[in-house]
Amino acid sequence: MATTWEDLAAEKKRRQAASIPKEWLITLPTDDVLDVTNIPANCGLLSPLELEITETREAATILSKVASGEWSSVQVATAFCKRAVIAHQVTNCLTEIFIDRALQRAAWLDEQLRSTGKVVGPLHGLPISLKDQISIEGLETTMGYASWVGKVAERDATLAEILVECGAVLYVRTNVPQTLMWPETYNLLFGRTVNPANRTLTCGGSSGGEGALLGVRGSILGVGSDIGGSIRIPAAMNGVYGFRPSFHRIPYDGSANSLGGQDSLPSVLGPLSTDLGGIKLFMQAVIGQRPWLKDPLSLRKHWDEDEYRLIEHGGGKKLTFGILWNDGLVLPHPPIIRALEITKNTLIAAGHEVIDWKPYKHDELYEVTKGIWAAAGDADYKAVVSQTGEPLLKSMGATNSPEPAAYIKSTGISAFELFKIQKKRALLRKEYLDYWQSTKALTSTGRPVDAIISPVAPFPPPPHGKNTSAEYTLIWNVLDYPACVFPVTKVDPVLDKPKPAHAFLSKVDQKIYGFVRCLHDSPETFKNAPVGLQLVGRSQEDEAVIAMTEIVDAALKATFQDKPRL
Amino acid sequence: MATTWEDLAAEKKRRQAASIPKEWLITLPTDDVLDVTNIPANCGLLSPLELEITETREAATILSKVASGEWSSVQVATAFCKRAVIAHQVTNCLTEIFIDRALQRAAWLDEQLRSTGKVVGPLHGLPISLKDQISIEGLETTMGYASWVGKVAERDATLAEILVECGAVLYVRTNVPQTLMWPETYNLLFGRTVNPANRTLTCGGSSGGEGALLGVRGSILGVGSDIGGSIRIPAAMNGVYGFRPSFHRIPYDGSANSLGGQDSLPSVLGPLSTDLGGIKLFMQAVIGQRPWLKDPLSLRKHWDEDEYRLIEHGGGKKLTFGILWNDGLVLPHPPIIRALEITKNTLIAAGHEVIDWKPYKHDELYEVTKGIWAAAGDADYKAVVSQTGEPLLKSMGATNSPEPAAYIKSTGISAFELFKIQKKRALLRKEYLDYWQSTKALTSTGRPVDAIISPVAPFPPPPHGKNTSAEYTLIWNVLDYPACVFPVTKVDPVLDKPKPAHAFLSKVDQKIYGFVRCLHDSPETFKNAPVGLQLVGRSQEDEAVIAMTEIVDAALKATFQDKPRL
Repeated sequence: MATTWEDLAAEKKRRQAASIPKEWLITLPTDDVLDVTNIPANCGLLSPLELEITETREAATILSKVASGEWSSVQVATAFCKRAVIAHQVTNCLTEIFIDRALQRAAWLDEQLRSTGKVVGPLHGLPISLKDQISIEGLETTMGYASWVGKVAERDATLAEILVECGAVLYVRTNVPQTLMWPETYNLLFGRTVNPANRTLTCGGSSGGEGALLGVRGSILGVGSDIGGSIRIPAAMNGVYGFRPSFHRIPYDGSANSLGGQDSLPSVLGPLSTDLGGIKLFMQAVIGQRPWLKDPLSLRKHWDEDEYRLIEHGGGKKLTFGILWNDGLVLPHPPIIRALEITKNTLIAAGHEVIDWKPYKHDELYEVTKGIWAAAGDADYKAVVSQTGEPLLKSMGATNSPEPAAYIKSTGISAFELFKIQKKRALLRKEYLDYWQSTKALTSTGRPVDAIISPVAPFPPPPHGKNTSAEYTLIWNVLDYPACVFPVTKVDPVLDKPKPAHAFLSKVDQKIYGFVRCLHDSPETFKNAPVGLQLVGRSQEDEAVIAMTEIVDAALKATFQDKPRL
Repeated sequence: MATTWEDLAAEKKRRQAASIPKEWLITLPTDDVLDVTNIPANCGLLSPLELEITETREAATILSKVASGEWSSVQVATAFCKRAVIAHQVTNCLTEIFIDRALQRAAWLDEQLRSTGKVVGPLHGLPISLKDQISIEGLETTMGYASWVGKVAERDATLAEILVECGAVLYVRTNVPQTLMWPETYNLLFGRTVNPANRTLTCGGSSGGEGALLGVRGSILGVGSDIGGSIRIPAAMNGVYGFRPSFHRIPYDGSANSLGGQDSLPSVLGPLSTDLGGIKLFMQAVIGQRPWLKDPLSLRKHWDEDEYRLIEHGGGKKLTFGILWNDGLVLPHPPIIRALEITKNTLIAAGHEVIDWKPYKHDELYEVTKGIWAAAGDADYKAVVSQTGEPLLKSMGATNSPEPAAYIKSTGISAFELFKIQKKRALLRKEYLDYWQSTKALTSTGRPVDAIISPVAPFPPPPHGKNTSAEYTLIWNVLDYPACVFPVTKVDPVLDKPKPAHAFLSKVDQKIYGFVRCLHDSPETFKNAPVGLQLVGRSQEDEAVIAMTEIVDAALKATFQDKPRL
């Protein structure tokens, strides 16, 4: 009997619904409730302890309370399972939900701690959510394709294996856009994930399920992937931290992906967290397990404490930051510019130096990136959807209209043409590195600029189907620069008034100006939308990027404490 | 006025001849003099001091004598310039010869040392030869193409720049095969380079000019490149050491190459030396200059002294070596098997453990390698030669006959097909790594096998045009395993008698058996041919591979001292 993709999707959704305990179903808010971040606190399902556990921002706090026995792993896992399921009911952020498995695992961890007096590893008892690429033995990996329903993983992805070795509790996987090549989160199997701060807005993508889940605190630490911004866009758009590590620092082996074998500009796995400490914890724990013994592509490079101590950045005492106000093509909109100004003023007040970062051939680097991404045309995606006739999406909008353009082309190029693009890219990377080194002449420290502070997108999270731009993130992928997102502010309808038209930098600039201007004319559109920025370092300086983001984040926290960052 | 490629080649050869001081021309030996390694000692051109300098095997000795003032840089540079020019006259190993420039540089180094009392860097005064890819500002980089005559480099390659910063004296560049994709050394611009131990045999390739130059001691340390054995084959075939570092450990930026932009299985630069100490010295010096600040693709990974001390290999006290007796497809010929047996017995006698290394899917890895190499067809090479009508060689033989087959195909594939091959390769790399880790069950140390000892080719250097096989080297490129060649023995007409036909492992095995058997029937064919082996470690274990090769080399030296290794 032939099975249609619609049948497969419906059956999978039924099984997904059945994986949620009935007693955890809440009364759903009406559609006009835009901000759902407080639903967990108000829905009555979570006990005071479960609220305390899930409103903890610092993963390290969870770890120490579990290690000391103050909280059991089962208590912590139960709390996050419940809250994740609540988050799912209001944002549609989950794919696989495996609560029984998680609670069994947590009970085993409690028993280990009880009987040995020792934690199993550096992440003992920490619930970790995973993007729906990171396979777990015995569970389906559908990656948002109805065509992949029933594709059960025969082994753990290397990263899942390592997280388990470290003592983590895996409990849910999270939603993605079809093909992964969109900065939003919508597919024909699980549907759309929305932004919990304002459900009319996108949660970003492609790790949008993670973003939304963390935005509701249904997870404290999650893993996404990033080929052009897919960790950073959802992190910024949901007001959390997110880190794009350098190529091959975190093992990708065994995870599902699009465009497997596209080796020159690969997607990387990395963490999102409600606290910057979670980012460091994840990186240290995973690298500490020597992933190169399991994943042949992983760099044989230990966590470098000297880099983290910023030995090559004057110990972090006085840093020089370069601010990328715009990329020369698209001027960021008022809330983004305001976030840059807040950060600039805070850093200067904290005794650091801030200069302007002039973009260098970003337009050419964008072309190179898109050339590599589109080199195989849509053959890889078609090979999947043609199994069932599932349509290939042409947009993230409700109508599947051809706008905005995807990073997908219908026809590919030859290997030789690809090599020519990659050759050009190597030359541009060399020029960019030389340019960065040349900034030594512009600083008072005698060093080149220590890090760049950059927008993540030229606008706050827009309404669904309208997120057209990944340029401010993909630029750092093509250069292989590690980049860490930190939250700065929220859209303020008073402060972030639309500005009059400027001399447009490009056609895209004009288009985006018009689009956001038009949205601003309905003052509620961007209400409550989070705004984050990213700190960018040079290739494989992952430890230093985390350390410098800590400095920026601490300065922002010290300046504003709990007050709004205006 | 149109210029033919023949005109360009003739003009370049005239300029090359003019770059050799007339007083350094020697009386050429007749063609029946096969072994020309003693010509420098006997031709009367070198002074006793120059002979002493150039017969020094250890680069460290040169460095210390220059640093102490016992020898001047000018004396050392003069000695090696002379000997290189002699080597060229008997093997045709050089391309660019820039003696004046080298002697000026040496004089400057002497002056620096005199005036400051300090050496300029860790390679102060050491002459270093370079394969004809590593560009030097103001000199042509022709890479063996007549079509590239007149292509003057506008900047130093990053590696050349770093070597100069370290205090090296650059003095000659060395010959390559057209396209670089052959394990011999012949092109239509400079002609053929021959093996100095027996001029009827190939010097190997593609870094064959380096191999021949080092074989005559016209260089103590040279730089080659290796995409499938191009450092290791000439090293083994000329009785010297050669090291293929892991991808991106040594900066390639700014060097000429074939197939630029083929990023997934890249060629790497690395050293050849008459002494293993030269290999370590080179790696330490180059990495010590932090090449990642100049080359965006270079790994940000310092020289790791813990890896060199073999911390993860039990401190090197008792190591387990796996011997690859054959790859399951081609049985190596008697001199190679004898070298493996010598090494095995020596290591056991030195207290190490030796087990058999079973090849794992080498055939599939060969197919993947060739698929990637041939992905662009011959478009890249044709783009060069079509400028002048220079023919694209179909063989390294004198007659340009279509045998043996090159690693070049006329038609390429699509980027999507390439991605599929690369995806398969990642899976095979994972399986190979798991296999290596599983050898823990086979050793007495509790560790997996520490290193593999492998043939470099299934036969000693064959006559020109007959080197058909790079499989024993390319296997470690596709896996990205660092590998270091060390000399073991020479062909012995008595011991290395052809063996009766065995049950052939493959058609290639049968063909190669027949070919070498036929050559053996003329007992003089392989006379004096060097035989080396390679030691192979896991990805980015470069430091450990060098340290373990030191252990093997020291054991061989201690056992045999100056006696033949039979």
